[in-house]
Amino acid sequence: MYKNMILSADLSKHVGEVVEIRGWLHTVRVVSANLAFLIMRDKCGLAQVVFEDADEIKKLEGCLLGTVLSAKGTVAEMQKGKFRFELQRASVNIIRKVVYPSPIDISKDEIHADGETLLENKVVALRHPRQMKIFKLAAIVEKNMRKFFDENGFTQINSPKIIGFPTEGGAEVFEIDYFGRKAYLAQSPQFYKQIMVPIFERVYEIGRAYRAEKSNTSRHLSEILMLDMEMGFIDSFDDVIEMTERFANFVVEQTWAEAEDLLLALGATKPLLVEHYPRISVDALHELMFKETGEDYRHERDLAPGEEKFICEYAAKHWNSDFVVVDGFPRSDAKFYHHQNQENPEVADRADLLFRGVEIVTLTQREVNYQRLVDQITAQGQNPEHPGLKHYLDAFKYGMPDEGGFGLGVARFVQKLIGLENIKEAELFPRDMQRVTP
Amino acid sequence: MYKNMILSADLSKHVGEVVEIRGWLHTVRVVSANLAFLIMRDKCGLAQVVFEDADEIKKLEGCLLGTVLSAKGTVAEMQKGKFRFELQRASVNIIRKVVYPSPIDISKDEIHADGETLLENKVVALRHPRQMKIFKLAAIVEKNMRKFFDENGFTQINSPKIIGFPTEGGAEVFEIDYFGRKAYLAQSPQFYKQIMVPIFERVYEIGRAYRAEKSNTSRHLSEILMLDMEMGFIDSFDDVIEMTERFANFVVEQTWAEAEDLLLALGATKPLLVEHYPRISVDALHELMFKETGEDYRHERDLAPGEEKFICEYAAKHWNSDFVVVDGFPRSDAKFYHHQNQENPEVADRADLLFRGVEIVTLTQREVNYQRLVDQITAQGQNPEHPGLKHYLDAFKYGMPDEGGFGLGVARFVQKLIGLENIKEAELFPRDMQRVTP
Repeated sequence: MYKNMILSADLSKHVGEVVEIRGWLHTVRVVSANLAFLIMRDKCGLAQVVFEDADEIKKLEGCLLGTVLSAKGTVAEMQKGKFRFELQRASVNIIRKVVYPSPIDISKDEIHADGETLLENKVVALRHPRQMKIFKLAAIVEKNMRKFFDENGFTQINSPKIIGFPTEGGAEVFEIDYFGRKAYLAQSPQFYKQIMVPIFERVYEIGRAYRAEKSNTSRHLSEILMLDMEMGFIDSFDDVIEMTERFANFVVEQTWAEAEDLLLALGATKPLLVEHYPRISVDALHELMFKETGEDYRHERDLAPGEEKFICEYAAKHWNSDFVVVDGFPRSDAKFYHHQNQENPEVADRADLLFRGVEIVTLTQREVNYQRLVDQITAQGQNPEHPGLKHYLDAFKYGMPDEGGFGLGVARFVQKLIGLENIKEAELFPRDMQRVTP
Repeated sequence: MYKNMILSADLSKHVGEVVEIRGWLHTVRVVSANLAFLIMRDKCGLAQVVFEDADEIKKLEGCLLGTVLSAKGTVAEMQKGKFRFELQRASVNIIRKVVYPSPIDISKDEIHADGETLLENKVVALRHPRQMKIFKLAAIVEKNMRKFFDENGFTQINSPKIIGFPTEGGAEVFEIDYFGRKAYLAQSPQFYKQIMVPIFERVYEIGRAYRAEKSNTSRHLSEILMLDMEMGFIDSFDDVIEMTERFANFVVEQTWAEAEDLLLALGATKPLLVEHYPRISVDALHELMFKETGEDYRHERDLAPGEEKFICEYAAKHWNSDFVVVDGFPRSDAKFYHHQNQENPEVADRADLLFRGVEIVTLTQREVNYQRLVDQITAQGQNPEHPGLKHYLDAFKYGMPDEGGFGLGVARFVQKLIGLENIKEAELFPRDMQRVTP
């Protein structure tokens, strides 16, 4: 248990001392019978170990990538080369010899394998130092998301993912055989987080959500990690926007402060941040897009993907911000639980937060008046007496303050923070239409 | 957004000042046209508000439990009564009037309703101050569990809950219709956490696990929150036990330091803690049980529920510890991934941590030798070539250090910490054979 051993990241503290590190064989280069260079991997990254003893070098014979070993040697600080510190005059202890050639080569800076081969061999691919860094960073991002909410009076909840009815309608839910009857996997904790507002006022949850959409794109996963928050006693929708701005700025700042090395190694660039994000309505964005590019979406009700990209680039260039808020979505497209804007009844109190070309958060104020909710459900052709809606409606029937919140896909946030091409790169073991393994 | 308002818990800081608090109507007692007492609830608990103005009292007419309101008044410190501080000479603003009588009465110290009525009306029941405290505490416990692992070099992971094959065998898994083919809900992240050891060395996960067992007891849920940890480079099984002891002591100590008021209000008593928990083998426990009670389990291979209860009471009384470790489980009952004890081949390197009468954690060292694992899988009648095992086995084929870990049901830990009778009391919206709503 790390007894009498150190991690590779701590070599700098032991220059001139004899220390032992343990990890996995990454590469071996035997120069001569009396000189060999071993690159070892541990949880912190790579370390170089130099052997100058024929007997020690012999022990490495036939040990393939992944062999578990410990190496003991004298720490030296290097003036040049890839490694600032190395172990010299080393001896080795082979803990567990690997004799099977690795199905993919993870010893180079990049893994040269196509997407499917990578996914099929994810168990090994994850051992690549870059992969390790991605998920180390993802853990830090998630921790900082929690930290923000813990520090701002939110209580964490855990809502069930097995639900009796597909509460938001929609056919895109997975069906379960639940003790002989049908149940479903939750698409989002939306109803549960709202139900919890009259208990904790402010709640958040980080948990799984399931999307059975038959789409197979670089933006889509069937099982995602969602961050959801909901806050009561808001004065207006602006409170939700303000909390979202504070949240995103906090997570970016904290993660950069804590893991700049990791981010730089991954090639990430720090997002441009301002206290209050630039805000533009759907209509104004259509106009701006037309004026700047000639592309005309002025009769569209929603944003085109090209517009999301455009406005993010525009915001970075002209408004010094990598985040931009788009509001003014038409009320007729809103869900029954969206609140109607008081000044402009055609519009819902909904906004999207865009980041580096895509929507990452949807924020809304909710309709909290019991009777209006019942009416809106009825108007959308659903039955408010339906058992999948009854408990939800009870939360309003028995007293709900003004409230709103947001939902965010954690992997997409991580993807955009680092600058990964495909969302699947930000999920340990992604699930899509084709793949449920490993 | 709490602008110009304070929380009920902060009344003590504003004695003599006029402040505004907002929340839910809990009870109203109108003494006369000019005197009424309102108990309000907010996220912090209950507060008393005194009205001495007929017009203000009139506003409360017809407002039922749950009505959302704000009250403004002068903070006074009280010498006697249930509330140490109250709002006097108050005015009220009815934010959202509730006119439907509550399906269950949550205004008393205890809710007088049977279990099913409570579950059916959980949306309202959770607003009861005691319910609120349970889940506030659960959030603190979960946060401290994360804190322990973050501070001890563990990396948090998120493994998928939709899996292609029921990896640990067993018929007790839920089946999903996954784009027209069968998939399953994971019973535990066991395989994934092991797979991640050669990447992060130490990992943990807090996530959902699914148990389709057809049992309907006070100990059973179909959807549970599991804490799983796994640690590599252990010297022996003792390292896993030591980490478990440190973990449990940390979570208890931190939670008590942070939330003693909450725990006392819930009637919890602080567990007896020692640095190293008393440890007894299954055989020695059978002997002790026989000697002390005359009940003879000496030919049983596992513990009887009565023995779990007995040894916990014995440990508290004689060894000053509410935690006790039972080891020496027979290897023949072990799972294929359990490690064989080197000194006693009849025994597996597995232990259970018992707490207040029940097992709360199962700890094991794992078999990490690829060939032995393949042999053990074969010996148990399974096929190591099965696609549900292939990726798991790859983790060992390509290099795994000695490792072990544990799994713990978070709700059961919370249940025992507080002293709740039924595990369902520690789950927000429990799932069992009968119930998938709310």
